[in-house]
Amino acid sequence: MKNRNAWFEAVIRQQGQVKPGNILKVDAFLNHQLDVDILDHLGHDFYEAFKDRPITKILTIEASGIALSCFAARYFHVPVLFAKKAMSANISPEVYQSQVKSYTKATVSTITIAKQYLQSEDHILILDDFLAQGCAVRGLLDCARQAGATVEGIGIAIEKGFQNGGAQLRNDGYPLYSIAVITAMSADAIEFGPGY
Amino acid sequence: MKNRNAWFEAVIRQQGQVKPGNILKVDAFLNHQLDVDILDHLGHDFYEAFKDRPITKILTIEASGIALSCFAARYFHVPVLFAKKAMSANISPEVYQSQVKSYTKATVSTITIAKQYLQSEDHILILDDFLAQGCAVRGLLDCARQAGATVEGIGIAIEKGFQNGGAQLRNDGYPLYSIAVITAMSADAIEFGPGY
Repeated sequence: MKNRNAWFEAVIRQQGQVKPGNILKVDAFLNHQLDVDILDHLGHDFYEAFKDRPITKILTIEASGIALSCFAARYFHVPVLFAKKAMSANISPEVYQSQVKSYTKATVSTITIAKQYLQSEDHILILDDFLAQGCAVRGLLDCARQAGATVEGIGIAIEKGFQNGGAQLRNDGYPLYSIAVITAMSADAIEFGPGY
Repeated sequence: MKNRNAWFEAVIRQQGQVKPGNILKVDAFLNHQLDVDILDHLGHDFYEAFKDRPITKILTIEASGIALSCFAARYFHVPVLFAKKAMSANISPEVYQSQVKSYTKATVSTITIAKQYLQSEDHILILDDFLAQGCAVRGLLDCARQAGATVEGIGIAIEKGFQNGGAQLRNDGYPLYSIAVITAMSADAIEFGPGY
């Protein structure tokens, strides 16, 4: 799968900025400004990867996962459900919640999903912009488990392959597809490879 | 313009829930779960309203404005820029910032836009899901003013016409188009009318 995404790797090399602390800023097209052509390409790529699965809903997390998921959802023709983030838990019997650590912000958030929108009959595709240690995806998986929903796959725009989140998810047997997998990066160069 | 949106008014009546404190929950299609057909309709409607303007960028605010703006941006074929919210100011010479009060959450956020993505040559369309007192739109207008960008229009999915944000923006001369304008609401009924 990796060669077909040479175009996206070139976009990341051209428009991404590597910052200290292994942070990749892609504010030009994905995390602040949103490039509709690039997002449409990514959405279609997720569709190609998972179109044979009986997906009923795309599950993501605010805010940066929303745009990506909207473009993918057009191809799957299913709703998007985005988990809401809050700094403090607001426990209710009507919601699923999980704790998510942010690698880049050094914070812990509580993510919340209303039970009425995620049910045991759902077959979900989890989408997110980045995968590093996998905390956001683990939080969404935890909510899906609470709901009894079936996880059909996980799609990621940019995986930091030099961190262990992707490897662990693959070891656990989840169908994980990352459009670009970064194997090494510095201020001077970004290297890509297959997902492990 | 109002009659062509009877379909959207019906969606709000069917799927919206009026909560105490003049809060309208539209989590079924706009604020938690996202209905791609409804969003596509709204995006096209904004395009019809503003297609004669020389728009170079859509400006919105995370998180609920993002989906709406993505669907509109497909028709305009321009990038979306979403202002980021943070509870505390993080002053930098490289960003525009403004203070925004949230009516529903009773909080004050600082919204932030990187200067490099909003410039004096830009002609922007501001889009958001709700307009009540207008605080979010005022914050985005403030950022646009700091950038020297031209505001070509403001598009809102649901205006609470019984609050004064819309009337003030129209009095100030902004081209404001709200797809649905609620004139009164209670747990039993939602009434719509034209924008004033």
